[in-house]
Amino acid sequence: MNFISSKEDLLSAVQIVQRAVSHKSPLPILSGIKFCAENDLLIVTATDLEIGIQCSVQAEIFEVGSVVLPAKYITEFFRRLPDVPIFIKSDPLTGNVSVKYGHSETNINGFLAQEFPELPLPVSEVKFSVPEDILKEAIRQVVFAVAVEESRPVFTGVLLEINGGEMQMAATDTHRLAWRKLKFDDSNNIDINIIIPGKTLNELSKVIGRPEKEVDITVTDNQVLFSVEDLCIISRLISGKFPPYRQVIPQGRVSRIRLITRELAEAVERAALFTTAGSSFIKLLLQNNILVVSVSTEVGRVYEEIPVYQEGEPMQVAVNTRYLSEALKVLGSGEINIEFAGPLNPLVLKPVEGNDYLSLLLPVRIREE
Amino acid sequence: MNFISSKEDLLSAVQIVQRAVSHKSPLPILSGIKFCAENDLLIVTATDLEIGIQCSVQAEIFEVGSVVLPAKYITEFFRRLPDVPIFIKSDPLTGNVSVKYGHSETNINGFLAQEFPELPLPVSEVKFSVPEDILKEAIRQVVFAVAVEESRPVFTGVLLEINGGEMQMAATDTHRLAWRKLKFDDSNNIDINIIIPGKTLNELSKVIGRPEKEVDITVTDNQVLFSVEDLCIISRLISGKFPPYRQVIPQGRVSRIRLITRELAEAVERAALFTTAGSSFIKLLLQNNILVVSVSTEVGRVYEEIPVYQEGEPMQVAVNTRYLSEALKVLGSGEINIEFAGPLNPLVLKPVEGNDYLSLLLPVRIREE
Repeated sequence: MNFISSKEDLLSAVQIVQRAVSHKSPLPILSGIKFCAENDLLIVTATDLEIGIQCSVQAEIFEVGSVVLPAKYITEFFRRLPDVPIFIKSDPLTGNVSVKYGHSETNINGFLAQEFPELPLPVSEVKFSVPEDILKEAIRQVVFAVAVEESRPVFTGVLLEINGGEMQMAATDTHRLAWRKLKFDDSNNIDINIIIPGKTLNELSKVIGRPEKEVDITVTDNQVLFSVEDLCIISRLISGKFPPYRQVIPQGRVSRIRLITRELAEAVERAALFTTAGSSFIKLLLQNNILVVSVSTEVGRVYEEIPVYQEGEPMQVAVNTRYLSEALKVLGSGEINIEFAGPLNPLVLKPVEGNDYLSLLLPVRIREE
Repeated sequence: MNFISSKEDLLSAVQIVQRAVSHKSPLPILSGIKFCAENDLLIVTATDLEIGIQCSVQAEIFEVGSVVLPAKYITEFFRRLPDVPIFIKSDPLTGNVSVKYGHSETNINGFLAQEFPELPLPVSEVKFSVPEDILKEAIRQVVFAVAVEESRPVFTGVLLEINGGEMQMAATDTHRLAWRKLKFDDSNNIDINIIIPGKTLNELSKVIGRPEKEVDITVTDNQVLFSVEDLCIISRLISGKFPPYRQVIPQGRVSRIRLITRELAEAVERAALFTTAGSSFIKLLLQNNILVVSVSTEVGRVYEEIPVYQEGEPMQVAVNTRYLSEALKVLGSGEINIEFAGPLNPLVLKPVEGNDYLSLLLPVRIREE
């Protein structure tokens, strides 16, 4: 392998792909980033076998070939290079790589690329495209609700369902749920129901977002491929059946309030400061067009009154502070409707405008003081 | 205590004084910040008994008094307050504090202020003023060389010497030394030789730097007081005798080079990436108007050539990578002179212009491979 590239191109490629580098794999080679020079293109790849990220970089190739370099050093090394042409050459027998810049040279001990797992791009008839900015916003609105602990894998993923020309996404960790519906031009004739790991969507959302550009999505039985310009993210799908989440969404309501999202979000942030591991919930008390947010811990007591427009009965519930805070952050609307179905029934949070998003929060059962 | 203030004033005061809060004192009260309302002024104080920081805030005082609030919560709480008038009132019997903002109220459990140590401002005839920006730059240029480990206290401090109308500052951890000389109008008739804790100067340099403003400095036998506008930093001095550092500075030299500071600094940064705990040094080889920076570890090898203007003999030395990097960062000059007095004698680093700064670096003795 022998090529010339620029600091900027090399750095941006490794910064993107390093997100897939495995930090705990027993295979040492997965702690590396693969560089493959072929046909005027440098292809940079990392994978932890669950997710793979591949980035193409323009380069002047003198000799094709490939090598794997330790991710731990290579990103920071590229960042510290001067802005001059960078000459990179690998020894096909040892995996050692020479990087020349100006009058200087650094040699890095690499791995032979043969040991690096192949990352074939999935091929399938099931292909569609979604605008980058719309997909990014939808991911942000649902992915926070996935479960972190991996004991039940389906809860660590986001359901993505397309049928009847409509995409729906849902995620739940059993304490909360987020659901988003979206329409896009390319959804006709597609009928899928897959569970994508939350981690994959988190990584995808970090690299997309340009308006008027699209993400191409290819789905096979057990993999999904996201492609944008010079970048591909390949991920396994989660097998299993997503829980029948629609039946959890309360159909009736006892009361509903409408308020300014920011006012509640800021009160919850202050209250969160006083909640500790032992008492992670805040109380919400609704009466007379006032929502009282309160918390009492050994550090102190918060009592905040927020003016609301109230329909229906007074209500008191206790909710997990962090869950409420996270739900409010992604709502994407200046005003919010909150629907209560009873002190132990889920709260439903919806933007005031539109009916394509909701999130749901199970109250905490507390002992009355 | 009962007063009105603004979020902005309260937040900026606690952000400054919290740097003196003790995180490991056995006295719980020192983990707090003291608020004292008196004569239209709120005085906010923190101390770990070695250093004390005090900040005055304009406030409308209804009732004088004082209280101590937990630093861990109060700074973040003030940050999260809305931009409305903040009403603060303490209960003189319990130390509990009510903070009202808009229609909301937070109660924080505080400490009674009686337990908080007094922090009397030192009074002395020995007083002088130094321009903020000049003092800040001088601190930056010497304080990095103080010792971290506290087994020999004088090495954790910076010597500050004024006589003959001139101030000199010096710091050393025995492996390196930094020295700075500066003239300022107010230095006549002052004759002092004190050792100020490095930590104190670090904190001071974070809050000063405005051009055309001055720091007032008061020195007693065992304390120093720095005052700027609404802010005071009081610190103990380190007792003991600073080592006779001047005799360490080599008087002769075998060779001298002149080079662009940034070129060496960047090469050292790249080399630093490859130095590990086991081998923390880089080699410098000087010959034929080229300075070669090299390092070889199990990760790889760096070999960088830097063009220099050379006087005198070829030279090879090994130096601690971090020490060289830190010395280059504070040099404050586009071009640097480095003087060599032999492979095991200290290197002297000087800006090309002026003779009011130098730093010195003891080479590492290495086994030739």
